[in-house]
Amino acid sequence: MTLRPAPGDDRDAIRVGMLGYGFMGTAHSNALKTLSYMFPDGPRPDLRAIAGRSEDAVRRAATRFGWEQYTTDWRDIVADPDIQVFDNVGPDAAHFEPTLAAIEAGKHVVCEKPLATTVAEAARLVDAAEAAGVKNLTCFNYRFVPAVRLAHDIIANGDLGEIYSASFRYAQEWRTDPEAELPTWTGALSVIGCHAVDQARYLVGELDSVSAILSNPVTSADRAEPIDTVASIVQFSGGATGDIGASLIAPGRRNRLGWEINGSKGSLVWDLENLNVLKAFTRTGGPLDGFADVIVNESQHPLVGAWWPSGHILGWEHSHVNMLAHFLAAVADGGEVGPEAATFADGLAAAKVAEAITRSSETGERTAVS
Amino acid sequence: MTLRPAPGDDRDAIRVGMLGYGFMGTAHSNALKTLSYMFPDGPRPDLRAIAGRSEDAVRRAATRFGWEQYTTDWRDIVADPDIQVFDNVGPDAAHFEPTLAAIEAGKHVVCEKPLATTVAEAARLVDAAEAAGVKNLTCFNYRFVPAVRLAHDIIANGDLGEIYSASFRYAQEWRTDPEAELPTWTGALSVIGCHAVDQARYLVGELDSVSAILSNPVTSADRAEPIDTVASIVQFSGGATGDIGASLIAPGRRNRLGWEINGSKGSLVWDLENLNVLKAFTRTGGPLDGFADVIVNESQHPLVGAWWPSGHILGWEHSHVNMLAHFLAAVADGGEVGPEAATFADGLAAAKVAEAITRSSETGERTAVS
Amino acid sequence: MTLRPAPGDDRDAIRVGMLGYGFMGTAHSNALKTLSYMFPDGPRPDLRAIAGRSEDAVRRAATRFGWEQYTTDWRDIVADPDIQVFDNVGPDAAHFEPTLAAIEAGKHVVCEKPLATTVAEAARLVDAAEAAGVKNLTCFNYRFVPAVRLAHDIIANGDLGEIYSASFRYAQEWRTDPEAELPTWTGALSVIGCHAVDQARYLVGELDSVSAILSNPVTSADRAEPIDTVASIVQFSGGATGDIGASLIAPGRRNRLGWEINGSKGSLVWDLENLNVLKAFTRTGGPLDGFADVIVNESQHPLVGAWWPSGHILGWEHSHVNMLAHFLAAVADGGEVGPEAATFADGLAAAKVAEAITRSSETGERTAVS
Amino acid sequence: MTLRPAPGDDRDAIRVGMLGYGFMGTAHSNALKTLSYMFPDGPRPDLRAIAGRSEDAVRRAATRFGWEQYTTDWRDIVADPDIQVFDNVGPDAAHFEPTLAAIEAGKHVVCEKPLATTVAEAARLVDAAEAAGVKNLTCFNYRFVPAVRLAHDIIANGDLGEIYSASFRYAQEWRTDPEAELPTWTGALSVIGCHAVDQARYLVGELDSVSAILSNPVTSADRAEPIDTVASIVQFSGGATGDIGASLIAPGRRNRLGWEINGSKGSLVWDLENLNVLKAFTRTGGPLDGFADVIVNESQHPLVGAWWPSGHILGWEHSHVNMLAHFLAAVADGGEVGPEAATFADGLAAAKVAEAITRSSETGERTAVS
Repeated sequence: MTLRPAPGDDRDAIRVGMLGYGFMGTAHSNALKTLSYMFPDGPRPDLRAIAGRSEDAVRRAATRFGWEQYTTDWRDIVADPDIQVFDNVGPDAAHFEPTLAAIEAGKHVVCEKPLATTVAEAARLVDAAEAAGVKNLTCFNYRFVPAVRLAHDIIANGDLGEIYSASFRYAQEWRTDPEAELPTWTGALSVIGCHAVDQARYLVGELDSVSAILSNPVTSADRAEPIDTVASIVQFSGGATGDIGASLIAPGRRNRLGWEINGSKGSLVWDLENLNVLKAFTRTGGPLDGFADVIVNESQHPLVGAWWPSGHILGWEHSHVNMLAHFLAAVADGGEVGPEAATFADGLAAAKVAEAITRSSETGERTAVS
Repeated sequence: MTLRPAPGDDRDAIRVGMLGYGFMGTAHSNALKTLSYMFPDGPRPDLRAIAGRSEDAVRRAATRFGWEQYTTDWRDIVADPDIQVFDNVGPDAAHFEPTLAAIEAGKHVVCEKPLATTVAEAARLVDAAEAAGVKNLTCFNYRFVPAVRLAHDIIANGDLGEIYSASFRYAQEWRTDPEAELPTWTGALSVIGCHAVDQARYLVGELDSVSAILSNPVTSADRAEPIDTVASIVQFSGGATGDIGASLIAPGRRNRLGWEINGSKGSLVWDLENLNVLKAFTRTGGPLDGFADVIVNESQHPLVGAWWPSGHILGWEHSHVNMLAHFLAAVADGGEVGPEAATFADGLAAAKVAEAITRSSETGERTAVS
Repeated sequence: MTLRPAPGDDRDAIRVGMLGYGFMGTAHSNALKTLSYMFPDGPRPDLRAIAGRSEDAVRRAATRFGWEQYTTDWRDIVADPDIQVFDNVGPDAAHFEPTLAAIEAGKHVVCEKPLATTVAEAARLVDAAEAAGVKNLTCFNYRFVPAVRLAHDIIANGDLGEIYSASFRYAQEWRTDPEAELPTWTGALSVIGCHAVDQARYLVGELDSVSAILSNPVTSADRAEPIDTVASIVQFSGGATGDIGASLIAPGRRNRLGWEINGSKGSLVWDLENLNVLKAFTRTGGPLDGFADVIVNESQHPLVGAWWPSGHILGWEHSHVNMLAHFLAAVADGGEVGPEAATFADGLAAAKVAEAITRSSETGERTAVS
Repeated sequence: MTLRPAPGDDRDAIRVGMLGYGFMGTAHSNALKTLSYMFPDGPRPDLRAIAGRSEDAVRRAATRFGWEQYTTDWRDIVADPDIQVFDNVGPDAAHFEPTLAAIEAGKHVVCEKPLATTVAEAARLVDAAEAAGVKNLTCFNYRFVPAVRLAHDIIANGDLGEIYSASFRYAQEWRTDPEAELPTWTGALSVIGCHAVDQARYLVGELDSVSAILSNPVTSADRAEPIDTVASIVQFSGGATGDIGASLIAPGRRNRLGWEINGSKGSLVWDLENLNVLKAFTRTGGPLDGFADVIVNESQHPLVGAWWPSGHILGWEHSHVNMLAHFLAAVADGGEVGPEAATFADGLAAAKVAEAITRSSETGERTAVS
């Protein structure tokens, strides 16, 4: 035999444009490139164009990740009729306007969390996307960690019984450093707290009300969102109670989104720093009952099949790969984005919870989630 | 040589009377007997008399533990001028009256938690003890776990810096069992929640206000205290915020009182199911920073010296032994009971927090701790 | 009612004499005093006499623990016809002669590990005890940790299937300290390694052969037993293979006897620093298979019933209490000491393994355990 | 602005040909594609051609991963003068001949472990590579896990002091399943044991001698390499002793390569199932000494800089990406492959240890590593 040219990839392409080239731009670019071959039965993303503020930086990003074109004006991407998906990984303040424009241009839309900086804007995006009939995704990527998905499925199947209580907390530490740069747009609630809120909604269900206290022992109060920590207690619509917290000033907590859920039939515990492991207690009545360290990396587990054999564990970035593979498949075959993934409706719901948390902290009253 | 009679123990005896012979009666009887020889430089308790409702049971308990006398009427103990210390380990409903009577009889008093079933009763006990000038102890025994004491000392020394946030939860599971007997006097707040409250006060400081939700998914609402779970958020007087929770319906949580405290210089994490280990993060800036599993069983650690060498770990009961050794020493030498141990003032403070939690759950409002 | 005198304890007394008042003397004295009331259905030990080299020290120990008499000459105890049990917790070099004399005086005998310093002496003790028909116990106390007993029962019942491999290691750290006092009689094999050997035999079964390397990087070679570390591989008679190790120079390992056992149906893992927890993997085929942290402190678990409720964990010393309660019950009712407890035959078997390890290290050859 | 075409990637390309398209073919293809953009300052691999036995499968793999050409005959790749690097991820039996041919054709060579099935073949590959002056890599990818690299650097810097003892074990479970397919070429020593051997050499140093027992309780003895478990003890040239083990029949051990290293200044513990965490004990003498869970994912840690921020953990595959990025950089700039990566000399050294283990198991004698 001799070397023969490989046949081209004849899968349908989904033409993607992206806004943003920072940390999340790298994570999404990597995800688009990786899912192309790790999900060979799914659609093939075509990295059509990337936009960003610095011309030098966006050009370099385009070359680095193989985006065919670049621009400093996201409107160029929105205006390109060829582009089917608009992936907005820009800064929080740049979530609303470009995403709305992309929807109005008929594009399917991906938006990093938080979906918008106000409930009103989030609601407008939901309405616009529904009116336009476009697929939409809020990047609550932790729904696509296999251990989280397994927990969701167990709870949804009733295998944990009635949910009694649930506790969620996302803790990081970088703001404890007095030298750390404090971006204008950040606070514990919008940067990380919203992930805790989405996990609560995804795993346990809708929230009726919250009581909350926000604090800012490090960040001065004259900032737009001077929130270092979030403490809140919640009433779920389904009857469970619990708490949702966040902190950017928890020394040693590198990136710890964690939760514990107690139901009538068992308990589940998980955290992001050890993301492959679900700690699970279910009662057999035998002498070996105890919390099991389930390494959620077996062929029978959800979201694992595309990857490696038993015990060859996944990392943080795989949640993005799994999430975007799911979304592009929905775009390609007309399937649903939710409830596996968070839609814009979920982004709006998280914004409403955040608003109720903020209001409760100000008033001291238990506050209904509208 | 020949066998010679051992000299008698010539230490001052502290004459003790006890009310109660159940689980806590066993724990305290064991503690009194054990501290006698494990703390050879402390006073020697003299187990003078034990009281309990069932004559058969109290007689058997007296013989079993070596109490010299027994009675079915605690008033006999209160009336005995010889008895110096009254140790009340009876059921919650029997905390107030006998303890008050013992104080009025001039005895030093030990009372299991909760100190009383109302704030008013707790306050009256505090006042009476102060007026009588008797030593008093509320049995928040977990202050005497070496890992907890070490954490306290680190925080008190300022080695954790400013405390930013703190989370406390006591979870058990026995009420998930529909067959479990439900004592009339119990609820998650008084049975275990008060321990979480005391840990919060002991480690972080006084509480200004709380917001809370109580729930009773298992226990019917017609019971006196139909509380299965407690969720609350708290504002500490010192500026920290946090949450305090409790559950009697957390499957797999055998006996898990746990907390996490984040300060400007580090974080501490502990739980009762693994009580010898303090998880501690302090920042050196070097490559090996991480949460350390500190086995608090070294000679340099507090509350360990009376016991075994490095790594020969202690169990749950040792907290009672350490606590009663401390109290009897204060009785013997006139030293202070607090702040190492919880006095009746601490029992009152915990009752006030519990009351605020209950009221906040009813009103939905952030409630000051009076 | 009035205070009435408690009836005396009318249980049969077992009259005990002890040699030694150091660390192990304290542990055994505590055990004898504690078992008396924590095992109210068992026999009542009568602490008749204690012997030790320093008159001052032994007198103080007698008073402290309530031994009725004391002596500086253990022969006084052996000669006392009233004493039924001789508990030898003296230094290793004082194990053989006094124990033999006690046997020859018809006493039941307890001896701390190692049973003797040579196989020949251990064998003579076994023969003597058999000839005299006295109960005998080698203090491999870790057989009486509930998690270890549970593991034993699971393996013995066949619930772990065929045992494939097993790994045992006892690691401490104190000899890494150049300032630490080095007793003349100690080495990693006799001080701690013998516990690892006994766990191997107790849990998996007899050993056919060993290959070993001993090392002494810290301790100079001119000492009697200059052994800092032990590494060995073993062939069990039942077909399993594995390894047995020990180290006195493992920084951070405060007191870590640990093992892992892999069978055809599952795996068990345990360590002494976290002694209440058995890590257990058994296969159900479901999605939640994983190593469970079994807190072996439930009423259904072995060796727990005398103690506290669920999750109120035990410490190191409880293994001694459980062990001596078992032995004294065998003395009282004529029951068997083994196989739950280690007899002198087990002490001899451990000595033979130790001898084979030593010889293999010298010759480099796989060495049969005689 | 308008969308502008992104400039092409003008980095030097390294033209790669690969043999194999199974599990490891996927891992290496993914690594080559990923390193191209995650290491933007390194060389750009050009995926020139892939070879495999099944024409259908190799053609599909080529299209899937973007290999330009495919063939069923690896000789086509070796014969192509354009190809600079030959990456052999074929089955063990196909390691020797194709790799040798590639060397003789002047190509730089990558070979999955084990380098060869005999010491003689491994030695011939080493000699050939040296004679040809080509870069060579044995794929002991776990050297490129950040936690492992950090441990290596700590030990190499002397920060762990003199190494006293070290224990290595690689355990999996799939052969416990009687239905599992047993490939002809596999056994615990060659499939996974060699990784444990390489970790021992990489972290502690060369081995002088071994004593070993191999067992095959599941696999019948008439197979080429009927090894289910490996137990061995080792003498390191530097003075440390320890053990190296492997098992394919350890239930619940999904993919657990683990080790513990004790030095005079501290101890390090790691395992692959939780690969981001290095457990580290170093002595400060303060009250918070304990094994720290170091999440090796900080910017100051080795091999992390190309990836994500603090606490956004990596998975198994990243070790391959890091490894191939290192190798291709050495090819591009003429740098050294070792000692960071394993060269063919390391593959040979591992083969010699494996041979000594096998021989010792047969003879029962401590066996020098030639």
